[in-house]
Order: sequence, then structure tokens, then C-alpha cells
Amino acid sequence: MDRIPVGILGATGTVGQRFAQLLADHPWFEVTALAASDQSVGKRYIDARQWLLPTPIPKGVRDLVVQPVEPPLDARLVFSALPWNIAGPVEERFAAAGYAVCSNAASHRLERDVPLLIPEVNADHAALIEKQRERHQGRGFIVTNANCSSTQLVLALKPLHDRFGLRKVAVITMQAISGAGYPGIAALDILDNIIPFIAGEEEKMQREPLKMLGRLNDGAVSDASFILSAQCNRVPVRDGHTECVSVEFEKKASPEEVMEALESFQPSADIAHLPSTPAPPIIVHCDPDRPQPVRDRDAGHGMAVTVGRVRPCPLFDVKFVVLGHNTVRGAAGGAIHNAELLVLQKWVS
Amino acid sequence: MDRIPVGILGATGTVGQRFAQLLADHPWFEVTALAASDQSVGKRYIDARQWLLPTPIPKGVRDLVVQPVEPPLDARLVFSALPWNIAGPVEERFAAAGYAVCSNAASHRLERDVPLLIPEVNADHAALIEKQRERHQGRGFIVTNANCSSTQLVLALKPLHDRFGLRKVAVITMQAISGAGYPGIAALDILDNIIPFIAGEEEKMQREPLKMLGRLNDGAVSDASFILSAQCNRVPVRDGHTECVSVEFEKKASPEEVMEALESFQPSADIAHLPSTPAPPIIVHCDPDRPQPVRDRDAGHGMAVTVGRVRPCPLFDVKFVVLGHNTVRGAAGGAIHNAELLVLQKWVS
Amino acid sequence: MDRIPVGILGATGTVGQRFAQLLADHPWFEVTALAASDQSVGKRYIDARQWLLPTPIPKGVRDLVVQPVEPPLDARLVFSALPWNIAGPVEERFAAAGYAVCSNAASHRLERDVPLLIPEVNADHAALIEKQRERHQGRGFIVTNANCSSTQLVLALKPLHDRFGLRKVAVITMQAISGAGYPGIAALDILDNIIPFIAGEEEKMQREPLKMLGRLNDGAVSDASFILSAQCNRVPVRDGHTECVSVEFEKKASPEEVMEALESFQPSADIAHLPSTPAPPIIVHCDPDRPQPVRDRDAGHGMAVTVGRVRPCPLFDVKFVVLGHNTVRGAAGGAIHNAELLVLQKWVS
Amino acid sequence: MDRIPVGILGATGTVGQRFAQLLADHPWFEVTALAASDQSVGKRYIDARQWLLPTPIPKGVRDLVVQPVEPPLDARLVFSALPWNIAGPVEERFAAAGYAVCSNAASHRLERDVPLLIPEVNADHAALIEKQRERHQGRGFIVTNANCSSTQLVLALKPLHDRFGLRKVAVITMQAISGAGYPGIAALDILDNIIPFIAGEEEKMQREPLKMLGRLNDGAVSDASFILSAQCNRVPVRDGHTECVSVEFEKKASPEEVMEALESFQPSADIAHLPSTPAPPIIVHCDPDRPQPVRDRDAGHGMAVTVGRVRPCPLFDVKFVVLGHNTVRGAAGGAIHNAELLVLQKWVS
Repeated sequence: MDRIPVGILGATGTVGQRFAQLLADHPWFEVTALAASDQSVGKRYIDARQWLLPTPIPKGVRDLVVQPVEPPLDARLVFSALPWNIAGPVEERFAAAGYAVCSNAASHRLERDVPLLIPEVNADHAALIEKQRERHQGRGFIVTNANCSSTQLVLALKPLHDRFGLRKVAVITMQAISGAGYPGIAALDILDNIIPFIAGEEEKMQREPLKMLGRLNDGAVSDASFILSAQCNRVPVRDGHTECVSVEFEKKASPEEVMEALESFQPSADIAHLPSTPAPPIIVHCDPDRPQPVRDRDAGHGMAVTVGRVRPCPLFDVKFVVLGHNTVRGAAGGAIHNAELLVLQKWVS
Repeated sequence: MDRIPVGILGATGTVGQRFAQLLADHPWFEVTALAASDQSVGKRYIDARQWLLPTPIPKGVRDLVVQPVEPPLDARLVFSALPWNIAGPVEERFAAAGYAVCSNAASHRLERDVPLLIPEVNADHAALIEKQRERHQGRGFIVTNANCSSTQLVLALKPLHDRFGLRKVAVITMQAISGAGYPGIAALDILDNIIPFIAGEEEKMQREPLKMLGRLNDGAVSDASFILSAQCNRVPVRDGHTECVSVEFEKKASPEEVMEALESFQPSADIAHLPSTPAPPIIVHCDPDRPQPVRDRDAGHGMAVTVGRVRPCPLFDVKFVVLGHNTVRGAAGGAIHNAELLVLQKWVS
Repeated sequence: MDRIPVGILGATGTVGQRFAQLLADHPWFEVTALAASDQSVGKRYIDARQWLLPTPIPKGVRDLVVQPVEPPLDARLVFSALPWNIAGPVEERFAAAGYAVCSNAASHRLERDVPLLIPEVNADHAALIEKQRERHQGRGFIVTNANCSSTQLVLALKPLHDRFGLRKVAVITMQAISGAGYPGIAALDILDNIIPFIAGEEEKMQREPLKMLGRLNDGAVSDASFILSAQCNRVPVRDGHTECVSVEFEKKASPEEVMEALESFQPSADIAHLPSTPAPPIIVHCDPDRPQPVRDRDAGHGMAVTVGRVRPCPLFDVKFVVLGHNTVRGAAGGAIHNAELLVLQKWVS
Repeated sequence: MDRIPVGILGATGTVGQRFAQLLADHPWFEVTALAASDQSVGKRYIDARQWLLPTPIPKGVRDLVVQPVEPPLDARLVFSALPWNIAGPVEERFAAAGYAVCSNAASHRLERDVPLLIPEVNADHAALIEKQRERHQGRGFIVTNANCSSTQLVLALKPLHDRFGLRKVAVITMQAISGAGYPGIAALDILDNIIPFIAGEEEKMQREPLKMLGRLNDGAVSDASFILSAQCNRVPVRDGHTECVSVEFEKKASPEEVMEALESFQPSADIAHLPSTPAPPIIVHCDPDRPQPVRDRDAGHGMAVTVGRVRPCPLFDVKFVVLGHNTVRGAAGGAIHNAELLVLQKWVS
């Protein structure tokens, strides 16, 4: 099969570079267009901005010339790594111009006809694309992936919600600095330090999971009805968000039943065969001191989440710790995974 | 007034060194004896073990010769920085030999006739010393301070419990490496990493606050009856524990009422005048990104705790973040503060 | 004696804040004016910018209203913490308007009639002020302190140059992030990393020490004639620069003689009595693993430098490691020290 | 070709684990025996000690039962990751028992008939094996790889020595914590800190390169005759040693000539085809701020070294910065590379 030509919007930022890295040898997609802000336009990608990742800049993109962030681009699908303050209207214009847009930005996540997708969790929500196409009066559309900290939480909550029904979820995060982009956090603010605040993050975490774990009825998603409380902290870790979670269920469940539900979680066969789906999606540790960022963030090539310390909670039913790679599963990798789902479901071809 | 001669048990460890540092210019106490394990006995303090603190080793102790950890010592009161696995019987022997023992170790904290003290919180619990003296048939006794992470939590909870009544408390900690002693945590385990586990810590945090916030009746403490859940994490921070707390009250209280209760908290006048009592004991921040270890751990010379991010909790009533210096207020400074209380109440003279 | 009214130019940056902190209880100076860039002008100091230091913002300055960085200011002496790209002409205007300017900026350091001062090293160079006053045709003038990494190096080299004569000096630095200001270094660039480059730093280190260790003849400084090579690195340390130095002398000297020269170094009695002069200015360690930033940067309230590992060098004569506090001795503290010297020498009154 | 059965001595330490990881899919070698100290003997590898690397424990070794560190082992070649204090006699016994020993330990590196090898540098030194076999009166022998910090230095010096002749080399290192093993460095000793000392390291660095760059004459290596000075520092970096190097040559060479010599360096064709030989072995950067540990340590799968900042030195001829992965090229990877060389040269079959 010929690879589908794809573009990256916001290609020079940290998430944009991660897209370029993860798409380098992708079996289904080929990067044919890079777009970024004015100061990069017209430069070769390698000259546009310092490459920040430890692996070399991929050969396929290093000499591509950066274009403006406007349609048309030589691509059928575009990945958006645009900052929130400009993503909204730009993504709209690409959708209106007929492109499939897989966005990592927050702008459209909560719109009624925009799917907020994790393939293993709510692949059926992609059906919202029909409604959106009506609105756009064309073939283009936008799908989104969630905030990094929401994504890994929802992946762990999915089998528990299915099996036991979520009623209450308390989550405290310890988030890596890469989540803030580049230059992002100043070293003086985080070396030997913790910042107990990330602007806008708690609001997203208290809202997005309800949509992702909601139910599709008559072409609309009705939110899940459990209650979420989030406290978000920035910690001196390069990559990998660690989250402490306590859960109360509709049906009582023991830690053993929770572990069993997590370990046995499997997406459907067609989703399991997507190039980016990790096997298993959820790794459960019994060692008392796991998961840890340096030891677990790269599990499943950064696409698996790792759960540990599953035990009774004196206040709710069960508490545990979940860890995921924030710029892979939680950002670029998640968006690419969604694009693969769109191909599987024939929204893109 | 002549200063009271005091000794330090376990003087060469990190907490022992902190005792030596904080007692250097103490107006009421003078370090006259240092005791440590066999390999240090007979050496001058400065030669016994590498000095780990950034301030120079105090002149008054550098040439003291380290003695065995057994009575008699040339002191009326001894501070115990002994490791948990030997503190129990050694402290008993000192109490039996007539010494006042201010212990930072966990061994005796939960014993019925041993006070677990924070001067601003439960100074009246010192009355348990009477019972203990009956048991020891002498003037000696043991008082204890709590685990570092419990201490700062209880200081923040005290005014809230008094005013609104605690029903449920969920706490997630991000604890500094100095809490694990020296050598303690291996650098490979914590640089660019989080460890979501500290052996025994959650059990202490779920138990000790109930005693400290309990009520003294007929010479015994009846535990407070709220429910606590703790998740303890180790983070790459040198000093200062950060704790994310959610609280449900008996009487509903708004974030504003909680802030007011915290800010207006004042110990009684005699306790406020102890040399180590900070003014105020609780600092409340309105900046959204405080408290932070590097900016707040030294508040009140390490004896104040700092609270920030007081806001509604979707699950409970109010959530906030509290930070304290784990080896000052949470260890050596807390024990010295307790010793000052003993002088004030004339248990030691 | 009435305290001399002083101003701080660039008061809201990291060095400016350090000036405010160190001047808080100064016996000779009182901060009466704060000046900063347009976005801060008109605001109270406490509201102008986030306070970055761990000690509280001093009471004497918190409510001062920030003024533009232009004369006149209500002060007789101004400390300049201005960035290099604007310091030059602004400091000139203050000097022309009759102010004594103690500048931490690089702009004027190498000008022929501007002293580049360290009180213990070259107090006599202040005589250049005479020449400068002729040029300014008034009482105003500029004195400068050196780059942070040069300052601590020169302080350690001074007794060696006096005693043995420097011929060659090789220095490799490991510099703290605070040296880059705020926001300065991005956390993603330095956590778990080293950056082997600091723009412009090696040029300064290879040039400034020659002036400071030069000789005053007929109202001009003739540079010292030894050769310097510098390699500057940024490391994940908050404060304190560590420098590895190898030295070849005119007269051969053993490590023991070098240690003796460093330990016995004393400034003249009047300079030793300046409020900021540490005693001793140079601390020599025999422990094989010192100096270290966390253990030695605060020596002498951040004004002393610490030397260790003095030993033979297979290529030159002797090698050693020297450490100093880059934002105290190496920046604001050094400039205040210079201002004290100006008072002592009656250039300011 | 059937893979050669190999064993790992000291299999549970950090270097031992790195051997297991790097050998997991090796085309020429298959791990058939794991040996470690008494407390691990009899346990499955996965149960013997915490796995410290971020990639999962390889399937081929996880269930192997750990054996004592004595011959016989089911292997033809053994890799030694033994600590220096026991490696000496144990490796001797394996050699005497007929095994080829590829040792990462320092014990035998400087023995006259033991090759100290880097395949791209001194493959001909393997001829010393003949002499050794005479001594052992059998087929067994020991070959060694150098200290991590020496290895990357020598790889960069090799083309310069060949082309311009080394006369003087000054090197200052900034070494990663993984070089100290596990638990190794205490977090309290290195977080926000530098330790300007590594026991024994400077002696090794001042000695080993002379042997590696020496000449083989009549079955013995005569050391190279240049002079080396080393200052070794430990820095808060997980992996990757950074070294600042200044060099004086026999023949004058410009920075451009040095860069050209480094970039054009190529091992012979047969060595270039060894599985672990990176292409190129030396990467030269022109960006002013490279090499950096996080960006360059994994170059060439951790087997390449990266050089940057090549420029004139005011004291010697040229200075530059070189970076390599200390536990891959500098330890386990280097030993495996040597084993590949032994196969190529038919010392092992």
C-alpha cells in the first residue's frame, strides 16, 4: 500500500518534533509537509529550530522546507501540534478545506461533534465525524486526543469503569517538564523543587475523562457521570507523568479484582493490530516501588501505561499509581494512534 | 539562667547532625554529650563522620568525644536521633536511668503513656508523662515527635479540626530525599525519577495524626475519629515535603473560612514564646503556584509550614497544598521544640 | 552614622533581587530607590515581579515604587544589575549626573579608566576614578566587579601571583544555572544534562583576570602578562560555580607552598574590616572531595571562596579546585563589597 | 553460524545488567550462563536483584539460574563485570581453565601480556594473547577494556595521535553517576551538587591511554610518551561522560585540521563490519553547544563518541569537548566489541 501523505502543523515545537520522530518509519504514513510559524517559514526543517530529541532528526524530513500554517498543504491528513491560542481557527480552516485533522491541541476537544479519542477506549466515538462533516459541508474533519495527564488516566480507568462502574475518582499528578514544551519551565523553577500548579490542567483533567468514558447515543456523546478531583504538580522529571489515583466504584471491587481487570484488558482485534497499539496497553506491576518514570516511561515504546501499588483505600475502594509517557502516548503518539484508527475505520484513505 | 546540659543519641547521622546544628546557639540548652555507634565511639565528633550540612560544624561540639549510646551521659535531657531498629530499648534504658528523652524515632510514638507532641497542637498531652513516670518508677520519661510528613500535616489540620471537625482526609506526599537519611536514596533511583513508595510511611501517616489530634481524658489520649488515606512518594528534592490534601469536615466550610482559620491560628502566649515557635506557625499563600520547596522550606527558620492553593474539592470540601521542612520542623527542630515545652511545663529543669 | 541612600538599577531581575536581599540590613547603605524596565515602573516592588529568593522580600523595599532607569534617583550611589545590552549608556548617564555607579554589568569593565575591583585583590585600582572624573567633568564615576567565574578565580590566584608569579593558567568551569538569570536556562536543557558552552564567558575569563591582577602605574593599569585558557560549562546546580584550575608559576612552588599561600592570605586591616569581607577570604580544604556547591557555596555568607584538591599537575606546577557563590561574591555581593571600599577610600560619603 | 555461548560474571550489578541487555539479540553471542555473588546463586536472574535498566529484562536470560563465579560455566567466553576487589584472581582462574575472558575490571589492564583494547584503536595489541597463553599454558586468556573515561578520550585522541603526534593532553571530566555502580552515589551527595573527586580515576586516566596508544614491538607494548593530566568530577547526570580536552601536538595542527582528522577517521574494513562498530565512530559537531549528555550519549547506539567545540587553545594547540556513553562504549559495550574482535581475529571460535 502507498503510504498516506501527512503534514505536521507546528512542526518545530517539542510536540511537533516528536511527531516527526515517531512518523519517521511509520508503515502507513509519510511526512510530506511541515508547517510552522513565520520565523521558520522558508527554512529547511533542520535549520528552522534546534532539534531537541536524543535521536537524530529523521532523514525524510530534515530537508523539507517549512511552509505557513495554512491550507493547502501537500497532505491528506494533518497532525496539529499547534499551541492552544492559535490551534482553534487554523484547524477549522484545514477541516473546512477537506483535510483530516488529528489534533493534540485543547481547542476543539469538548465540542459536541468532535471526537476525543483513545483507540482502545472509545473508538466508536469516531462516528461523530459524520455530524462534523455535515457542519463542514465537506470531507474534512477534526479529531482530538486528550491532555497528556487525562489520557493515561483514562486508559487505566477504562477497564475499571466497564467492569465496576466509576463513582468517584481522585487524582494527584506529578508531571514531567517536557509537558510544558520548550523552553517551557525555567530550570531555576524546578531543579530541587516542585511546583504545585499547572495552569488549566486541573480543569482539563476534571472534564475530559467524562467525555472519553461517555456513551455514544444517537450521534452524540453523553458524558460519564462520575466525579473527578485533580491536583496537578510539576516535578523535576524529563518525561513521564506519575499519577496517584483513588477510586470508588458502583460495585465494590477488591484490589485483586482491579488488578485482574487491568491486566486482562484487551482492545478489539482490529485495534490491537494498529501499528501503534501496545501489547498489552496496561502493564501491572507487583513490585511495591513501581511504576517509576525512568524505568517505565518507555514501556510499549512509550504507548503502554504502567500501573502499580494497587491496594485498598481507607476512604474510597481502591488506590493505585499509574504512569505514562506524556509526549508519546500523551501527545504525538496518541494523535498518530488516532490517525491509524481513522484509516482502519476508513475515514481516511 | 544556666543552660540545661543535653546529649544527642545517634549524633553522627543526618538527623543527629541537624540536632547539633540547631542546638548550636540555643538559649536554653547546651550540648554536653554526643553518643553514637561503636565505630564512632572515642573519636572527636569532627573526625567521626563526614559533616553533611552546608553550615560549618558548630564549635561547641566539634571536639567533643563520641560516647556509647548508653547511660550515663553528662546531660539531663537527651535527644534521640537513633534509627528505629535500635531506638526502642535504648531510649527505655535512658528513661529508666532518669533522663528526659525527646525522641525523633518511631519506636514509642504509639505507646499509651508516651506523648506524641507538637507544642502548638497538643501541649496538654505532655500530662501522659505522669503515667510514664509511675511505670518507670523515677523521674525519667520519653516524649516523641511524629514522622516528618505527619507533623506538617497535623499542624495544618489542627485549626481546621478545632473549627470545623475533620471527617475525612486524603493526603498525597512528595517527600524530599533527606528524609531517608544518609546515604539513603541512591542517586540512580531518584535523579530524573519519582519513587511512588516509602516503606512504612503510609501506615505512620494514617495513624499518628489521630493520636496527635486526639483528646486527653483521665490521663489517656483517645484518638480522633476521622479517616485518613495516604500515598507517599519520594521526589528529587533535597529538603521540604510537599503534601496535597483533601478534607471533608463535620461542618461545611468554604475555602475562605479555611484560609481564615489557618491564618489566624495562634498557639497560647506561653507556647508562642518558646524559642523555636515560629510566628506565625502557618503561612498562607494566595499565589497560585505556592508553596514550593526551594522558596518556602526555610520559612520561620524551617519551623513554619506553608499552605497554598486552598480551593473547593469536587469530592470532599476543600483541598490545599502544605509544605514543611522535613528535617527541621519534621525531625530535629520538632524534638527541640518539644524539649522547650518540657522546660516550660517544668517536666525538665 | 547615617546610612548612605542607594538605588538598584535593574532591581527586578535575579541579580537585582539579590542586591535587595543583601542590602536589607546593611550597616552603611539604605535602599531608597529601585529602578527597572517599563513594565515594572509605577508598581510596588512586591507587585512588579515574582520574588525568586528563598528568604522573604525585605520589608524596607517591598513597598517602594519602581522608577524608570534614568537619573535622577533619590540616592547617592547606584548598584547596576542591568543586562549587558542596555547597561553601557545608562550607567554613563548616571555617572555623568554625578552618581557613583557600582556595576555588575560587563559593559565598562575593560575601559581604561574604569576600575575592575575586588577589595582584597586590587583596592588600589580605585585610583582610576580620578581619571574618570576628569572625563565626566563631575563627581560621578563607574566602578565594576568582574564576571562571576572570573571573580572567584582571581581571588584564589591573587596570593599565588603575589608569591610565585603566574605564567600559565588553565581553567575549566562548571557553572550554576543562577548565573544565567531568570528565566535563563530551560529545564529541558539542563536536567540530567551538561551544556559545554556559555556565550561570551570564555572571552571574559581569558581577559578580566589580567586587568584585575595588573599593576597600577601612572594612573593606568598595565595588564598582568600570564596566559589564560578557559572552557566554560553549565551544570545542573542552582548556585555555586566550581572551577578546575592548573597553574604554572614563574618560581616553582609545591602544593604545600600553594596551600600555605592560600590559607595565610589576608587583606589589609582596613579592608578586612569592611562589612562584607569574609574572614578568611579563602578557605582551604584537605578532604579529598571538597569543595562542593551544596556544602561550600555559603561559606563566609557566600563571600568566601573555597579551594581544595591542591596537588601537583603533570603538565603545569599545581592543580586545584576553587568554588564560590556566583550570585553573592560573583555578582551582587561583590558590587556591594566594592561600594564599601569606595566609602572606606572616601570616594563616596 | 551457531552463536557462541557466553557467560556474564557479576551479572547482577549495573554493568552486568548492561551486558545482559546488549547481548540480548547479539548476532554472534548467546548468553548461556550468569554468575554472581553468593546471595544471588541459585535464584532465577529475574529474582536475584532489581532490574535497573529502562528496557525490560531480556527473555533469554530472565529464567537462567545464577551460578557461582567460578569455572566451569557453560560458555566459551565470559564477560567480566566483577568489582575490582575480586576480579583479579577470579578472572585468572577462568583464563587458566581455558576461557576467553573479556574484562571490564581494572585488575589486569596494565599487565604486560594483557591487551587493553579498543577495536578501532589498537586491534593489533590482541597479539599479546600469544604471550599470555604461554603463561597460562592453555587456550584461555584475558583481554580488557579501559576505564570508561579513558575509552572515549582515547577514541578521540587516536586519529590525532596518528596524524599530529600527541605531546601533552589535559583533560577535565564531568562523569555520570551510573559510572559508580548501584547503589553508588548517594542522592544527597549529588543532587544540586558536584563532587570534584572520583577515587582512583585520575590515576587510571593518566596511565591507561598511554598503553592503548602505545606501539606493539616484539610482542610487547611500549607506551606512548605524551604527558597526561586529569581532573575527574562527578556530576548529576545519569549517563554520559563529558570531557574537556586540551592538546599539544608534535606537529602544529589547526582546529580545522583536527576536525578533519576526527571526521575522516575510519577503522579498517573488517573492524568496521563488527556488529558493534558504529559508523562513524567519531561524530563531530559544529553547533557551539554540543556535545551534551541527553542529546548525544545514545549516538551510534551508545558506541560512538561525539566531539564538539574544536577551537584554538591559548596554552596548547587545540581544545575540544568529547562525550561518550560510559556504560555502553565505556563498559559493557566496549567489552562486547572486544569479544567481536576476538572472533574476527580467530582467538575465539
